[in-house]
Amino acid sequence: MTTPLRLGIAGLGTVGIGVVKIVQRHANTLARRAGRPIEIVAVSASSRGKKRGADISTYAWEDDPVALARRDDVDVVVELIGGENGPAKALVEAAIAHGKDVVTANKALLAHHGQSLALAAEEAGRVLRFEAAVAGGIPVIKALTEGLAGNRIERVMGVMNGTCNYILTQMEATGQGYNALFEECARLGYLEADPNLDVGGIDAGHKLSLLAAIAFGTQVDFDAVELQGITDISLDDIRLARDMGFSIKLLGVAQLTGRGLEQRMTPCLVPASHPLGQLDGGTNMVVIEGDSVGQIVLRGPGAGEGPTASAVMSDVMDIARGLRLPTFGEAAANLLEAPAAVVSSAAPWYLRMTLLDKPGALARIATVLGESGISIDRMRQYSHDGAHAPVLIVTHRAASDDIRHALERFAATGVLVGAPVAMRIEEV
Amino acid sequence: MTTPLRLGIAGLGTVGIGVVKIVQRHANTLARRAGRPIEIVAVSASSRGKKRGADISTYAWEDDPVALARRDDVDVVVELIGGENGPAKALVEAAIAHGKDVVTANKALLAHHGQSLALAAEEAGRVLRFEAAVAGGIPVIKALTEGLAGNRIERVMGVMNGTCNYILTQMEATGQGYNALFEECARLGYLEADPNLDVGGIDAGHKLSLLAAIAFGTQVDFDAVELQGITDISLDDIRLARDMGFSIKLLGVAQLTGRGLEQRMTPCLVPASHPLGQLDGGTNMVVIEGDSVGQIVLRGPGAGEGPTASAVMSDVMDIARGLRLPTFGEAAANLLEAPAAVVSSAAPWYLRMTLLDKPGALARIATVLGESGISIDRMRQYSHDGAHAPVLIVTHRAASDDIRHALERFAATGVLVGAPVAMRIEEV
Repeated sequence: MTTPLRLGIAGLGTVGIGVVKIVQRHANTLARRAGRPIEIVAVSASSRGKKRGADISTYAWEDDPVALARRDDVDVVVELIGGENGPAKALVEAAIAHGKDVVTANKALLAHHGQSLALAAEEAGRVLRFEAAVAGGIPVIKALTEGLAGNRIERVMGVMNGTCNYILTQMEATGQGYNALFEECARLGYLEADPNLDVGGIDAGHKLSLLAAIAFGTQVDFDAVELQGITDISLDDIRLARDMGFSIKLLGVAQLTGRGLEQRMTPCLVPASHPLGQLDGGTNMVVIEGDSVGQIVLRGPGAGEGPTASAVMSDVMDIARGLRLPTFGEAAANLLEAPAAVVSSAAPWYLRMTLLDKPGALARIATVLGESGISIDRMRQYSHDGAHAPVLIVTHRAASDDIRHALERFAATGVLVGAPVAMRIEEV
Repeated sequence: MTTPLRLGIAGLGTVGIGVVKIVQRHANTLARRAGRPIEIVAVSASSRGKKRGADISTYAWEDDPVALARRDDVDVVVELIGGENGPAKALVEAAIAHGKDVVTANKALLAHHGQSLALAAEEAGRVLRFEAAVAGGIPVIKALTEGLAGNRIERVMGVMNGTCNYILTQMEATGQGYNALFEECARLGYLEADPNLDVGGIDAGHKLSLLAAIAFGTQVDFDAVELQGITDISLDDIRLARDMGFSIKLLGVAQLTGRGLEQRMTPCLVPASHPLGQLDGGTNMVVIEGDSVGQIVLRGPGAGEGPTASAVMSDVMDIARGLRLPTFGEAAANLLEAPAAVVSSAAPWYLRMTLLDKPGALARIATVLGESGISIDRMRQYSHDGAHAPVLIVTHRAASDDIRHALERFAATGVLVGAPVAMRIEEV
């Protein structure tokens, strides 16, 4: 097979230019590995005149990205525009309709429209691939779909937003608060245009919903992801968690149990000695647990020109080599519509609260926990100013609705100052 | 495609039975993922009557494994006999000759005969796959060959012998010496029949030679691997290294530089804070560095029934899905014969020696280092008994032949007691 594979690239931002650079720099290596040349024939972006870090003058230019889908000389449309609707969606739909294979890095698009796009691609006999949409340069889609294809996947976990992990690990390392670090990230350009995509957990939630679909053979269901960002994490919690041997991470967890599909992207405590707890800075990590393989940990850069372009090229090379799989690892028409689990699987919980320093206050709290069916593993009361007593509780395994119920009942005790903090301790 | 993929399995030890269990337990899931059923039609092992952990009574039995290769009802021969020659090699050759695809977990076979077997398979239009031969359940062959196919690979590193890593981390954790832990491993059945395969680094060296071939597009060259086992690692070195922030690992490193192909499987110091330094017990880790992706770390169980069978099934599922690649990621006929690098790339070194406690002894050593072009980063002299002074030196980056040269010249100084210890500090 020596026919070149011809790419049309839409979107020439950081990642698009990263892809152009790889195709130009490694033309010979890629051809040797794929058994055929990889060529870029056409590109599209919002501004033709803009200075870019690569020479694109030999490629055809299209002002309208959808025009790439109609070109007879394009085999694969590479969609790097981004955004859940608008031109990205129009392009991917047009590309499939015109018989092109599609490679995208667009997690928002797939989290919202993955099922319908995958169905359309498979009906048209085309592939729609998205390695770059999850965890940047880590080849996690391939690991899960192919490398672990012999396993029943039991749980997938991931730290998949570098900005959040940077903020949390810097809070711990420097003692700066969330707001100061948020401002630093804004200055450094680490934040999305809408920062809530990062710190609200939405971006990471998109990624988790894609991993869950692949892991469990279920239809992507982003709307069912339990989302909680990192904006309320305090230095106190970070320090107290560390004292007890835990790190706080914005952790995505997906599990398919008898109760349905659990998908959580929330701040969790994980053991400081586990690779998840040791993950510093902007690096991403995905942990996959299979019934045969046990626990596999994948770690690498989650964003940036090179890593994301590397992931895009993984899909391009698969297509060039004739490796064709359904978008989510099995036929989209067969993916299950799993109900969302209302109650999460049981776990120990971290509870922090401030009590009025009056006789019986702690007893009231302990009684509520006991009556809610929650038993206490460890408790610490910290030295205090006389009026308010900070109290820390680590529970034994408890159901999430028992914890919710107890938190509601705490309010009625009249002994709490402010709202209690509750975070799940993910057992890894 | 609903034609079943029909397997003939040779070797029904731990891994073979693990594969049988997966195929039986997950028949429906595998069929859904592959788009076709996976069936076992025939098996072969040394003893038919032996009790095994799975029911094999419905499969055809062959006393001679090579007979599997001749069966018309077998599409894929799964070779799990092991051993670099003998029946395993005869079976794989026969399978290719009879037009079967082959999946093997046999690192010794491929380290020694990988090039000729891959050539034969490719000439016959068959695939020969070996995910299970390297790092157990970690899908590292797939990550390197496919997931990072857009990268020039700059370095591959790995801790790939769980027994050695168990011994080294237990030495550090418990303060027991090498011999006591070797005995413990023997009792626990952690050692190969020839323990030198483990503690001599040969098994891990086999794996490294396979990774190097894939990473750099070179012909497998196990004979060029610099091999040094862990039998001489002392508790002193483990403690002293830890004092300076390092862990000692049996680390495989492969790099292709202007000097040729470096392949080392030797005890090295790595930063205790890096995932390699944090890797405890029998777990394996592979670190891949690519020019676009940066550093990817893969961690998981390196041996055992489930993990190894999971890797075998990854290859089986690829074949079932029609994903067909050359054995080493590109056509075997195109793989380069890279010369082995005589001199390793420069690195800091850890040197430990005992000096006679007489005036000028340290100066003699420092002079030799200086004259060998080696500069000292850190030096510690430990308190001592009056006659002998233990000295620890961390050098700045130095070429391996400069280190070798200096070690040779140390002998002539007449101030050393015993042989000095020298270990490379791998910068990660």
